[in-house]
Amino acid sequence: SKSNLTYAARAKLHPHPVVKKLFETAEAKQSNLIISADMTNSKDLLELADLLGPYIAVFKTHIDLISDFSPSLVTSLKALSIKHNFMVFEDRKFVDIGATVQKQYHGGALRISEFAHVVNCSILAGEGIVQALSETMTDENFEYKEDRGLLLLAEMTTKGSMAVGGYTESCVNIARKYPDAVIGFVAMRALTEVLPATSSEEDFVVFTTGVNRLAKEDKLGQQYQTPKDAITRGSDFVIAGRGIYAAEDPVESAKAYQREAWEAYLDRTK
Amino acid sequence: SKSNLTYAARAKLHPHPVVKKLFETAEAKQSNLIISADMTNSKDLLELADLLGPYIAVFKTHIDLISDFSPSLVTSLKALSIKHNFMVFEDRKFVDIGATVQKQYHGGALRISEFAHVVNCSILAGEGIVQALSETMTDENFEYKEDRGLLLLAEMTTKGSMAVGGYTESCVNIARKYPDAVIGFVAMRALTEVLPATSSEEDFVVFTTGVNRLAKEDKLGQQYQTPKDAITRGSDFVIAGRGIYAAEDPVESAKAYQREAWEAYLDRTK
Ligand SMILES: O=c1cc(CO)n([C@@H]2O[C@H](COP(=O)(O)O)[C@@H](O)[C@H]2O)c(=O)[nH]1
Ligand SMILES: O=c1cc(CO)n([C@@H]2O[C@H](COP(=O)(O)O)[C@@H](O)[C@H]2O)c(=O)[nH]1
Repeated sequence: SKSNLTYAARAKLHPHPVVKKLFETAEAKQSNLIISADMTNSKDLLELADLLGPYIAVFKTHIDLISDFSPSLVTSLKALSIKHNFMVFEDRKFVDIGATVQKQYHGGALRISEFAHVVNCSILAGEGIVQALSETMTDENFEYKEDRGLLLLAEMTTKGSMAVGGYTESCVNIARKYPDAVIGFVAMRALTEVLPATSSEEDFVVFTTGVNRLAKEDKLGQQYQTPKDAITRGSDFVIAGRGIYAAEDPVESAKAYQREAWEAYLDRTK
Repeated sequence: SKSNLTYAARAKLHPHPVVKKLFETAEAKQSNLIISADMTNSKDLLELADLLGPYIAVFKTHIDLISDFSPSLVTSLKALSIKHNFMVFEDRKFVDIGATVQKQYHGGALRISEFAHVVNCSILAGEGIVQALSETMTDENFEYKEDRGLLLLAEMTTKGSMAVGGYTESCVNIARKYPDAVIGFVAMRALTEVLPATSSEEDFVVFTTGVNRLAKEDKLGQQYQTPKDAITRGSDFVIAGRGIYAAEDPVESAKAYQREAWEAYLDRTK
């Protein structure tokens, strides 16, 4: 793992353009923070993106939560992503046969391929889903080729999660076979603990959900760690939702999360 | 398992209104066939529903594939469901923390709770997802209370599926805890082979995908069995997509699938 190197160093070494851009964005903004923007209408979503844009590296969406979704929302979100220099991660968690996910990702109702630099999928169905999304993302005629990356959902934060053991190991093994598409994992820590890197070149990016500075859990099985703990365990980008957007002052909260996660990163790389 | 009883007998015995309706529909139309309507625009979807409506018990959607999705599609689909007396199954495969899936199911962009009598979820995240969907579906103020059911995605049809062993067993165990919401499984066979019924009352409905009369697989890992084999193994409703809608004559194909699956059911229950 390259988690002792700076984002700047990793950006230089990494062959994938989306990873380069992620690390460069983090360096430029001194932020390894992702907001989980689980808003339920367009106005709230765009306001949050504009408000917190300066403090984040990535804006994470569940675009299907938006009751008044329309193609113009996609246009506005893309404009804010440029204005504030953040990338967009649609947390779709694709989990189906290959033929279906290709149509869900590209050309569907939610226009995911058009706005999301990063998407994720589960390998519950096996390797075919990764093969299918990889085919679409690296197709010669795909408009966003080289500007799209895939994360494998390797662990989950919830009580009783079955994304453990052999499932998590398979994620690492499958990721290694699709380097043009798979850029890393959604996981609670660096997965080098699970399967050590096979080469000194290997550098998967780890996005970590279930991050909250105060709470330990919610009422429906969600479990949390702090930003500092996540980064110390090898996470590269921490994702917080309610800890930020439901705070009394979301901007102050975002700044506090940004500071804590960034300091933990400086500690890890010094 | 009650798979040796007729649908009519099971409809009488079953406490869940959605299961009653499923079995009654099957009896009324002499069909245990579900079409997987993986169309990518509203016109094609509605045309297929109108064309094949007479031959099916349930119409299965991936509503997020519809490039021109709009709320009026939902209205039209509901009207066709009444016209032809079929139920609707949205194959969403929810797989997230409880707080997120509640918003994806009810009130989101795709209006799933409004049109889908049946939805499914994976238990990769643990039991919380089932608890969460069950809460929403059985809420006193939920408009469609008692007209909605949940299937657990207990097995998958794809090469290298990880929905096996302990994962599949956990589906059965969790299903037993939420009888007001969970009506059965998406699986390739009756799951009594996996975990024998704990009571003579138990009657989970089995929906089976990966059904095709001719093909054995596709290019992205999908694998098939015939309608007859599925029903003989204890499936209650067989789901076919490309085998029907991509056939030269979809109506003739639907009739052939309907006949084969219904005869296998008559054989099983005689
Ligand atoms: O295992 C996971 C995976 C994900 C994302 O891939 N998530 C998502 O992070 C966010 C956590 O929000 P919170 O910080 O408000 O709990 C939600 O959008 C949830 O769907 C989790 O909470 N847990
Ligand atoms: O394990 C599964 C589960 C499902 C649904 O829950 N499916 C779905 O059935 C349909 C099979 O289509 P086909 O008959 O054209 O292969 C697709 O919509 C696919 O997403 C599968 O194909 N395999």
